Amino acid sequence: MTSGDILHMRRAIALAARGLGGTSPNPVVGCVILDPSGEVAGEGFHAYAGGPHAEVVALREAGERARGGTAYVTLEPCNHTGRTGPCSGALLEAGVARVVVAVSDPNPKAAGGAAVLRRHGVVVDEGVLAAEAEEVNAAWLTSVRARRPHVTWKFAATVDGRSAAEDGTSQWITSPEARADVHRLRAESDAVVAGIGTVLADDPRLTVRLTAGLTAGLTAGVPAPSRAAPVLRVVVDSGARTPAAARVLDGEAPTLVAVAEDAAVPAHLSPHAVRLPRVPGGIDLRALLAELHDRQVVSVLIEGGPTLAGAFLREGLVDRVVGYLAPALLGAGAAALGPAGVSTITEIHRLEFAEVTPVGPDLKLVLRPKSPVSSTPVPPHPASSHPVPPPPVSSTPGSPAPVPSESSGPQSPKES
Amino acid sequence: MTSGDILHMRRAIALAARGLGGTSPNPVVGCVILDPSGEVAGEGFHAYAGGPHAEVVALREAGERARGGTAYVTLEPCNHTGRTGPCSGALLEAGVARVVVAVSDPNPKAAGGAAVLRRHGVVVDEGVLAAEAEEVNAAWLTSVRARRPHVTWKFAATVDGRSAAEDGTSQWITSPEARADVHRLRAESDAVVAGIGTVLADDPRLTVRLTAGLTAGLTAGVPAPSRAAPVLRVVVDSGARTPAAARVLDGEAPTLVAVAEDAAVPAHLSPHAVRLPRVPGGIDLRALLAELHDRQVVSVLIEGGPTLAGAFLREGLVDRVVGYLAPALLGAGAAALGPAGVSTITEIHRLEFAEVTPVGPDLKLVLRPKSPVSSTPVPPHPASSHPVPPPPVSSTPGSPAPVPSESSGPQSPKES
Repeated sequence: MTSGDILHMRRAIALAARGLGGTSPNPVVGCVILDPSGEVAGEGFHAYAGGPHAEVVALREAGERARGGTAYVTLEPCNHTGRTGPCSGALLEAGVARVVVAVSDPNPKAAGGAAVLRRHGVVVDEGVLAAEAEEVNAAWLTSVRARRPHVTWKFAATVDGRSAAEDGTSQWITSPEARADVHRLRAESDAVVAGIGTVLADDPRLTVRLTAGLTAGLTAGVPAPSRAAPVLRVVVDSGARTPAAARVLDGEAPTLVAVAEDAAVPAHLSPHAVRLPRVPGGIDLRALLAELHDRQVVSVLIEGGPTLAGAFLREGLVDRVVGYLAPALLGAGAAALGPAGVSTITEIHRLEFAEVTPVGPDLKLVLRPKSPVSSTPVPPHPASSHPVPPPPVSSTPGSPAPVPSESSGPQSPKES
Repeated sequence: MTSGDILHMRRAIALAARGLGGTSPNPVVGCVILDPSGEVAGEGFHAYAGGPHAEVVALREAGERARGGTAYVTLEPCNHTGRTGPCSGALLEAGVARVVVAVSDPNPKAAGGAAVLRRHGVVVDEGVLAAEAEEVNAAWLTSVRARRPHVTWKFAATVDGRSAAEDGTSQWITSPEARADVHRLRAESDAVVAGIGTVLADDPRLTVRLTAGLTAGLTAGVPAPSRAAPVLRVVVDSGARTPAAARVLDGEAPTLVAVAEDAAVPAHLSPHAVRLPRVPGGIDLRALLAELHDRQVVSVLIEGGPTLAGAFLREGLVDRVVGYLAPALLGAGAAALGPAGVSTITEIHRLEFAEVTPVGPDLKLVLRPKSPVSSTPVPPHPASSHPVPPPPVSSTPGSPAPVPSESSGPQSPKES
């Protein structure tokens, strides 16, 4: 593995990330092709489900320059015939001499493309930047492993953990740069979830708005994700109280209103409502995630409400926390997080910092559970073209080795 | 200014920092001497009030090698005769050819040592790393400008801003590394302040304990500060309720109990009690700081109690916030900060992140007010050997220029 390999694979991973939010329920994949002299001849990424694979896009750009060259692919080239034929075949046909792979195809049955390539004399190196490449596919991996969407809880608060002042005012605690970053988070998600409390209090639109003004403030320098479909809006509303005039029902994006099975659903909610089992405190969040999984939702963003966030956390259903901390203090007002099933210090939800980055004047923190939420083997995801990896595989870069989840099953998720 | 100048001045600033907590009420000063070939020949710092100045220590180590060499000093060499004679004279006598100064002597009357050195043919360069050198003297500068101690509020919390679980348990939210760093913060302060609520609930000792086990966990690699005197412990206790058995009265360090002027003081508190005006909610914190200033306390660390911290913040008396955030969530329990005079979002206390550093698994955040707490000219500090600088001078490194405080006076400190 050379420093050039790392450079090009990192670029391929960045390309893969551009597919986030667009490829569901497929994984994201990026590809960089070098000509024999080592010049970049082609780049590509998988942009949307049903669209051309990353290798095919990059090979198309490289044309004859690919012959005798090197391909960097974030996921092992597929070996099955789809709309575009197997990618391994496309690479062979183009005459690529070496293929560098970050993450091997996790499906034992799929007779990996790497073996086919090697049989035809192509040099194949696997495992280059594997952890980073797994990270960019964390949502897809969670979806196939846990058979539910990958869940991110996002909050914005002061350093003392308040999301609003004493009188309920909260515009704006964080900066325009942080708010633009939230729209990017939304754009990378298949669904955005808010509680009825937030809908009644703030009447949010929950749509993705990546305006020039907002994106101009972004520091990351990454292009905004392009989406094939709008982000699904989900309201957790056990009592079916979402008003007809609520912005989430404005028709700008599809909306699902999750109501309790016994709720009286008014006519304006009928087209949106899905009935789910009632549990103490609201609806069954596992049933909600199963419903979303059935609708091929791979990733959700919990946006609204300390109560809802606390409920997801209590159930062990949070895979990632993204917090935007403003350099400010309130000392009173609504807390960012409501009751999360912790009554004494030994029950604290322990996570670890995965990223800490300045966003404008604010600080963006990304945290993940210390152990994978689920590493239990599950059957292949029916909608996926890259079936289930054999567990356990850590999806957190930098974590030394996969560790068994402290959860013994779906009913004891406290420490996950 | 060469890269060598920056390197050696940064070292001199690091040396100066080793005096933090020991030199009060004097500033901290560091000095590096190079021989004519550019090799380091001597280093020194001002370690305690009344002790030898940094230049004298470094010259002593350099001996004859200083002749024709260069001296880096964080503060302009003094020009008055004290116990060791003027430092400008010492540098001349040693035959130093060039003197590089970070911060010029702010006292217009003192006829700076730089002028004397120049008159004798020494090359003097001023202003090298001035902002960093001002930063290390922030406490002393606040003390002479605002005529009160520099105030740091320290807290430890989860990322959702909780300092204890619902049942009051809190050991341990943060890591041993973070707790060791707190002891360093204490050691750099002249006084540690806690509220009676914290004393009654947690019975803290408030002493500096830099054990090998704790310091081994430190990541900064900076030696622990050495103190000439123990850190003064201060309890804000308007009702004189500190019990006789409280650990803060254990005699391991001096303790001041600030009681309201009308409180009935029990016999066990008499040796410690100082009576201060009562205001709604407790004692007058400005009067407390004035009392500490009179006792030559240059820096205080507010350690205990969300209520006390909120009161200091409400009064605009916090110069620095140091927060240790654990990668954990509680969702319920005591907040790190209590009511701080903010009822609506426009009254939010805005600060800025000055430092963000990992400490073990935790994150250490240092924040400062966006505008200097006080830039009002005040008469010279009687106890200081380096009298008052002409205002306004920003003490925040990296801030582009001094801006007027938004505080119009001691009664409107909300935005400071």
